[in-house]
Amino acid sequence: MVWCSGWRLASAVSNAGGLGLIGAGSMYPGVLREHIQKCKRATAKPFGINVPLLYPDIDQIMDVIVEEGIRIVFTSAGNPATWTGFLKSRGITVVHVVANTKFALKAESSGADAIVAEGFEAGGHNGREETTTLCLIPMIRDAVSIPLIAAGGIGDGRSMLAAISLGADAVQVGSAFAVSDESSAHQKFKEAIVAAAEGETKLSMKSVMPVRLMKNEFFEQVEKAEATGGGKDELIKLLGRGRAKKGMFEGDLIEGELEIGQVSSMISEIRPAADILKNIWNDFLKRKEDICNLQL
Amino acid sequence: MVWCSGWRLASAVSNAGGLGLIGAGSMYPGVLREHIQKCKRATAKPFGINVPLLYPDIDQIMDVIVEEGIRIVFTSAGNPATWTGFLKSRGITVVHVVANTKFALKAESSGADAIVAEGFEAGGHNGREETTTLCLIPMIRDAVSIPLIAAGGIGDGRSMLAAISLGADAVQVGSAFAVSDESSAHQKFKEAIVAAAEGETKLSMKSVMPVRLMKNEFFEQVEKAEATGGGKDELIKLLGRGRAKKGMFEGDLIEGELEIGQVSSMISEIRPAADILKNIWNDFLKRKEDICNLQL
Repeated sequence: MVWCSGWRLASAVSNAGGLGLIGAGSMYPGVLREHIQKCKRATAKPFGINVPLLYPDIDQIMDVIVEEGIRIVFTSAGNPATWTGFLKSRGITVVHVVANTKFALKAESSGADAIVAEGFEAGGHNGREETTTLCLIPMIRDAVSIPLIAAGGIGDGRSMLAAISLGADAVQVGSAFAVSDESSAHQKFKEAIVAAAEGETKLSMKSVMPVRLMKNEFFEQVEKAEATGGGKDELIKLLGRGRAKKGMFEGDLIEGELEIGQVSSMISEIRPAADILKNIWNDFLKRKEDICNLQL
Repeated sequence: MVWCSGWRLASAVSNAGGLGLIGAGSMYPGVLREHIQKCKRATAKPFGINVPLLYPDIDQIMDVIVEEGIRIVFTSAGNPATWTGFLKSRGITVVHVVANTKFALKAESSGADAIVAEGFEAGGHNGREETTTLCLIPMIRDAVSIPLIAAGGIGDGRSMLAAISLGADAVQVGSAFAVSDESSAHQKFKEAIVAAAEGETKLSMKSVMPVRLMKNEFFEQVEKAEATGGGKDELIKLLGRGRAKKGMFEGDLIEGELEIGQVSSMISEIRPAADILKNIWNDFLKRKEDICNLQL
């Protein structure tokens, strides 16, 4: 949710009854502090920070989080052993994002309070095993005993109920909120997500780190580099700096990197985050009712 | 289910209360006739035939099906418009297998009675869009009104309930039955499936036709050919003839092609098909009960 989830989206989700997250992945430490302070003014409800652990300014980011009295941190893209102890010793609830059982077990043994398990269909950074949410959740459910949050492919009440059926305790919703009114994504990117048809995202950049992208000119260049065996160096050169910002925040739909989930083909309008959340919840309850009334 | 689903497995599944399918994809017309006749003797219950439409002897296969009085045919890997009319005019129920909405609509307009929608996690032939079952089922549910059967990633009661939550009317189970006692797969292949860990299958052969394979020496050769830009010709040469038979039926785990789903990492024993079916059903009912009792 880099370039999508700032204080506006996080506070809107929290105010609507979810747990809003500020995505620190696209923020310098000073910018994160500003977002946290604005988020506190915009909601009295709890909210959290998502921190990709591969972040260069990670020490300063963690200092900001502690200084600002944040109570919930989601860590991702890294080893859960590195920061969980630091955060836990400061009384912070830690949730670690994983894409396989090995890291789920590692997160649990590192003292994480919960796990987000993210399937192949999710937008952005993804696992090398390419395990889908449907296969991933039952496997991790059987392997760990801490609470489990499903992510990847969840954008409506049906997929939420499916995730709970698979053994998840909760769900994390990304792409559906990336197109909310309060998302800081560029309007052009939001419109592109709404317009996206089936098959228009693909897991790409596998020789560097798998990332699910919306297909565009930049994506085609990446695919070409991979198909001709260019390898890691060529891809890193192609990626350059600021590609994600260019695409998602500045709205360059041609040359920018556009991270979004497979579920984007089901998203049909730009709405307030509260409406999105309410819809998912109400559809979930309705679908649960339907399932309970099934005559077998 | 080529090389796995002969008359023994089909009749065992039908006798246990499912709809058993004979997979015609690995059978010459005469062999198929033999399997149908043996299946009729082994069960009084309905069973069906799965016919990949790219099959070279397709006309003769269809003649055998009509002559033997088969009532249910699942068609796959081809255009539903080609054979649905022929089969329907003979009173046969036609179910067409798809991996995207476009073909689901095509199947419906061709007169198919139902659709199997198969996600990215499924074993064997797969769609180019790489849409997972979690994303595929709600999309197709919203697009067509004929009954919808979910496939891909379904091997226990939890994933069955998830599929129903997503809007499926039923599920198709492949990999879990490939390791049954009655499956005609080689014992060594069954044992390899049971031993398979997370991430040990991968969608491969994308430049010819995407197929989910278990990782082995043959798979590595395919991946190498794709990574170095060898393209279609090199892959077809590498594939040669009889690779699937060699792997799945003859048990050559090194040089053979091993088609199996992602769910194989959850399969832990070789059991009678009836036990597998009963377990899925009982777990489905239990999980449904749990969901209905959830206090929200």
